[in-house]
Amino acid sequence: MTTIPFISIGTIRSSHTIAASTPIQPVYAEDCLGSVELRPEFADGLADIEGFSHLYLIYHLHQAPPPQLRVKPFLQDQEHGIFATRAPCRPNPIGMSLVRLLRREGAVLHLVGVDILDGTPLLDLKPYSPRYDAVIDPRGGWTDAVDDATARQLGRRDFRPHETPPPPAAQLGT
Amino acid sequence: MTTIPFISIGTIRSSHTIAASTPIQPVYAEDCLGSVELRPEFADGLADIEGFSHLYLIYHLHQAPPPQLRVKPFLQDQEHGIFATRAPCRPNPIGMSLVRLLRREGAVLHLVGVDILDGTPLLDLKPYSPRYDAVIDPRGGWTDAVDDATARQLGRRDFRPHETPPPPAAQLGT
Repeated sequence: MTTIPFISIGTIRSSHTIAASTPIQPVYAEDCLGSVELRPEFADGLADIEGFSHLYLIYHLHQAPPPQLRVKPFLQDQEHGIFATRAPCRPNPIGMSLVRLLRREGAVLHLVGVDILDGTPLLDLKPYSPRYDAVIDPRGGWTDAVDDATARQLGRRDFRPHETPPPPAAQLGT
Repeated sequence: MTTIPFISIGTIRSSHTIAASTPIQPVYAEDCLGSVELRPEFADGLADIEGFSHLYLIYHLHQAPPPQLRVKPFLQDQEHGIFATRAPCRPNPIGMSLVRLLRREGAVLHLVGVDILDGTPLLDLKPYSPRYDAVIDPRGGWTDAVDDATARQLGRRDFRPHETPPPPAAQLGT
C-alpha cells in the first residue's frame, strides 16, 4: 500500500512519561501544563497565533499499540469500533487534542490541558475557531450513556489505593 | 529529515472537483453532501459510529500548494502565520473538517457539510464528543475581526458576475 509521508514539525512536552497514566482527554487534564517546541525553521508560521485561546494539536501517537478494529474504550467495558472511539490503536496512529494556549515564547507554545505523552512528534496545529468548530446540539453516541462523574474519574486516572482500579482497557484511551 | 508514513484508509467523495471553488469550511458547505468510502478491510472499525451526529475527518490535502509559512487567508487581505490559519499550504498538508453524519451503509458514511475535494485520501476519523470538544468562551484571534456576513460570502465562494470577485488568496483556504 502506498504510504503518505509526513514530518515531525516539533515536539510536545508534558509531565506525562507513561502512557497508562496519561490523562485521556484534555478536559481531564485541565491542570496539566505542557508545551509545543516547534522546529525553529517553522517558527515564522506562528505569527498571530497568540490571539487564539484554543488550538487543535494533531500528532503522531508514536507509542500506540498495533491497530485493532474493535476496542474496549476507557469509558465503558463494551467493545466499539475503533473509529467510534479516540483510542490510539488506530490504522493511522494520529492523535488530536484541543488545548488552551497560555502564551508564546518564540518557537515555544505554552499550553494547558495537555493529555499527551512527553516527546510526542507534532504533525500540525490549527487554531480553534468559534465560527467553524462550535457544534449545536451534538449527539455523542455510546458516550452519552456514561455519566460525567464516572467519565471524569476514569479520564483523570484518579484512583486511590482503596478504590477499584480501572479495567486494563483504560490504557487504550477513549 | 525522518518521515512518518501513514496510509490512505479510504476516499472522500464530494461534488467539489476544483480546489478554487470548494467551500472553505464545513459551516459554509452546509448543503454539500458527500461521503467517506472506507477501505473494506477497515469497515469493522465503524461499529457504533451511527450514534454520533458529528465526525472529525482528518485527511491528506493531496492537492495543496507547496508549504508557505505566511499566507493571506480567504477571510482577510492580511498576512498571518500558516498555523494561525487553516490554509492548506502547511508544512504537513493535513486537513481537518467537522462534518455531520447522516447515515452509514456498510463501509460508506453519508455526510453533509463536506468542504473537501472529491478523491481526497482519508487518514483518520474521530467522533465529535460534546464532553471533550465543546469550548467555553473561546477567542478566535484575527478571525474575530471579520464579520459573519463577509466570512459567509467568502467561505461559500458565493459570487455572482456583477459582484467583486474574491481576491486570489481565496484559493488558499481559511
